[in-house]
Amino acid sequence: MDRLAIAEVRLTPVLVADPPLLNTQGVHQPYAPRLIVEVVTRGGVTGLGETYGDTVYLDLARPLADALLGHTVTDLNALPALAARVCGDPSLSSPRRSSRGGPDAATGADAVDAAGLRGVQTADKLRLSVLSGFEVACLDAWGRATGLPVHALLGGKVRDRVAYSAYLFYRWAAHPAGRGESDDWGAALDPSGIVAQARRFADRHGFTSFKLKGGVFPPAQEIATIRALAAAFPGRPLRLDPNGAWSVPTSLQVAHELRDVLEYLEDPASGTARMAEVAAGTPLPLATNMCVTTFREIPEAFARGAVQVVLGDHHYWGGLRATRELAAVCRTFGIGLSLHSNTHLGISLAAMTHVAATLPDLDHACDTHYPWGTEDVLAERLVFRDGHLDVGDAPGLGVDLDRDRLAALHRRWLADDGTYRSRDDAAAMRLAEPGWVTPAVPRW
Amino acid sequence: MDRLAIAEVRLTPVLVADPPLLNTQGVHQPYAPRLIVEVVTRGGVTGLGETYGDTVYLDLARPLADALLGHTVTDLNALPALAARVCGDPSLSSPRRSSRGGPDAATGADAVDAAGLRGVQTADKLRLSVLSGFEVACLDAWGRATGLPVHALLGGKVRDRVAYSAYLFYRWAAHPAGRGESDDWGAALDPSGIVAQARRFADRHGFTSFKLKGGVFPPAQEIATIRALAAAFPGRPLRLDPNGAWSVPTSLQVAHELRDVLEYLEDPASGTARMAEVAAGTPLPLATNMCVTTFREIPEAFARGAVQVVLGDHHYWGGLRATRELAAVCRTFGIGLSLHSNTHLGISLAAMTHVAATLPDLDHACDTHYPWGTEDVLAERLVFRDGHLDVGDAPGLGVDLDRDRLAALHRRWLADDGTYRSRDDAAAMRLAEPGWVTPAVPRW
Repeated sequence: MDRLAIAEVRLTPVLVADPPLLNTQGVHQPYAPRLIVEVVTRGGVTGLGETYGDTVYLDLARPLADALLGHTVTDLNALPALAARVCGDPSLSSPRRSSRGGPDAATGADAVDAAGLRGVQTADKLRLSVLSGFEVACLDAWGRATGLPVHALLGGKVRDRVAYSAYLFYRWAAHPAGRGESDDWGAALDPSGIVAQARRFADRHGFTSFKLKGGVFPPAQEIATIRALAAAFPGRPLRLDPNGAWSVPTSLQVAHELRDVLEYLEDPASGTARMAEVAAGTPLPLATNMCVTTFREIPEAFARGAVQVVLGDHHYWGGLRATRELAAVCRTFGIGLSLHSNTHLGISLAAMTHVAATLPDLDHACDTHYPWGTEDVLAERLVFRDGHLDVGDAPGLGVDLDRDRLAALHRRWLADDGTYRSRDDAAAMRLAEPGWVTPAVPRW
Repeated sequence: MDRLAIAEVRLTPVLVADPPLLNTQGVHQPYAPRLIVEVVTRGGVTGLGETYGDTVYLDLARPLADALLGHTVTDLNALPALAARVCGDPSLSSPRRSSRGGPDAATGADAVDAAGLRGVQTADKLRLSVLSGFEVACLDAWGRATGLPVHALLGGKVRDRVAYSAYLFYRWAAHPAGRGESDDWGAALDPSGIVAQARRFADRHGFTSFKLKGGVFPPAQEIATIRALAAAFPGRPLRLDPNGAWSVPTSLQVAHELRDVLEYLEDPASGTARMAEVAAGTPLPLATNMCVTTFREIPEAFARGAVQVVLGDHHYWGGLRATRELAAVCRTFGIGLSLHSNTHLGISLAAMTHVAATLPDLDHACDTHYPWGTEDVLAERLVFRDGHLDVGDAPGLGVDLDRDRLAALHRRWLADDGTYRSRDDAAAMRLAEPGWVTPAVPRW
């Protein structure tokens, strides 16, 4: 096992071009921070991982990188306790447990932090996201060293390709004040703009299901957009995600009006209590990547019937193996599962694809921001065919780093004065709308 | 990956000497059937597994062995669907799910089959037990082929040794009618006999926690035995397991009388409904390996607070990886976990030890029948030190087959006229008590 011991960990923060995609908090900044993790074994094999690159994550990643030296890349069950020890918060190394009831859950509506698109930002969540990048890098290294694809290390694929959906955004043609990179997508601020965007996604990547990021315009406008998509793509699965921007009555009204065309409604309202109220009032399944983002939040949400589909994200849950554990919990309780995405590069897309391939009960096409990206750290970008990614059998994740590209994106991070080193969609919005503040929820 | 493809699967049923241990159903037969599974890769590596050897299991194991040829030993996520396909019942390949509620649960008190010590015997459960033997053999082969211990394939050990408890039984000195093998333990039919047995276990193996198999004598006698153990081993964790033989009032009375000395009370009453009633009436934690033995049984049992500790058994749950999934579900809901045992050999003990070593929140010493055994198929028997088994880093399970011993135990199976090929504790009891029938529950 000595050849699998970790001899070096390299952390490379990068800034990646991101288009001006709108959400209820504001707009994507021109550049998004990501962290590329490289784990090098004593045997000379390098494994790749990727996670959030915001400064608060980097501050946790650095001590964890140091602490990993000498550990074995298979030593993954020990990671949470190790991360808890070196990153400060002791709660993960000794999870709070009661012998007669569920763990403490901090999931009331009031606990939802409107400043984040992933619910309350706790030390636990930050640490799990950092950990996920290391876990993926360890799996990649382990796979490369033993000639096995990552999906095999997770118990083997049960499908040869993974379905993804088109992730539609209201967007501007360009970032304010001439900032950032340009693209040729143009603006999409009304139903016809979104339908055109969807057609381009369908034509280029073969996607057959469509998710609209909502919470941007008053609900009637977003209902009209979904109706336009339903008319343009009859019978296709559609989803709408306002990131918790709506009240319970608004959520119920939208659910009622779109009940015949939506596959599910994603996070219409903020917090488990409101989601449970909505769920009780509509037959439409509710999906979430906001009110259930940690194992601790599950018991209350499931008991109250607040969600019917959990959109797992290996960056949130602590890695690919934790995502498989989430799948086991969902399966046990008859809750559906799919995978969620924030802005990411090809390493994370490959990781998502490997774990998705191993989940027997993945019920819905996965989300991904990847097609919006024009930059990557990979030698070859991953290519969707008929809305799917193939699940290869090459060792590890099956992707290779382009060191020149990595270096260029890292230079952009080095050159940044701090403006883009932490994502702030509200700050980006203020460039176009001075005085913009993150809207309180419910917004409508 | 071709070298990890399965070229041959060998199934060897054996009969193993078993002492006359008493339980509420009857008494152990002189010989217990087990099945030894050998998976041989194209690369020439052999992996070992072990599971129940009763005829009903053998009948499922044979078609699964054939179906595995050509599959890769890492291809474990596909095993349940494969087993469901070739062994008949389609429910596993496409688990029944509701989008708005839990899966169907057949867990009412009435559904408990008093003829089995592991609850209702369904096709699903039988198949999962068979599958567990193949999964362990595949993991052993995979580990041997890549130089990794099985615990590493499960994400790595979080402890270097695993605690086991002494498994105390009321027993006779010898099997009726001079059958079976003899041993020098003598009879243990009263408190002093059990205390002497416990002392011998403690002296020989270093065990510091003690489980008494109850449900044999009226509760007052078993309470007296636990009291005698508490006096002989003050402060040590004690457990009592009547295999669901008691009514709710009896269970509550025993719980009340032993509340100061029991670590937990195991399956006092039969079925989730009765267990929930007992749990509601006592602060003593209830453990189970009867009312929660499948994922399908979890939602109702957890929602009703019927159990506080699940005693997982990788033979029940479908293997080591499924046991880790069970651990994730328990952790999520704040339910304790330990590992359960039926009569088994060293391969299964090694497998239990590997998975136990990977579980951060294993809260109690594991059960094992192993110290009662005098026969094994291993070249070297596993040795307890200070009540623990060391978790080694040798490739695979770290145990080797003694082919002469295997052949001898298989010859015993071949020579058997069918008397012992399926375990039947009631039939064994009838040799001593003609007219004995499996007692109805609640017995007291």
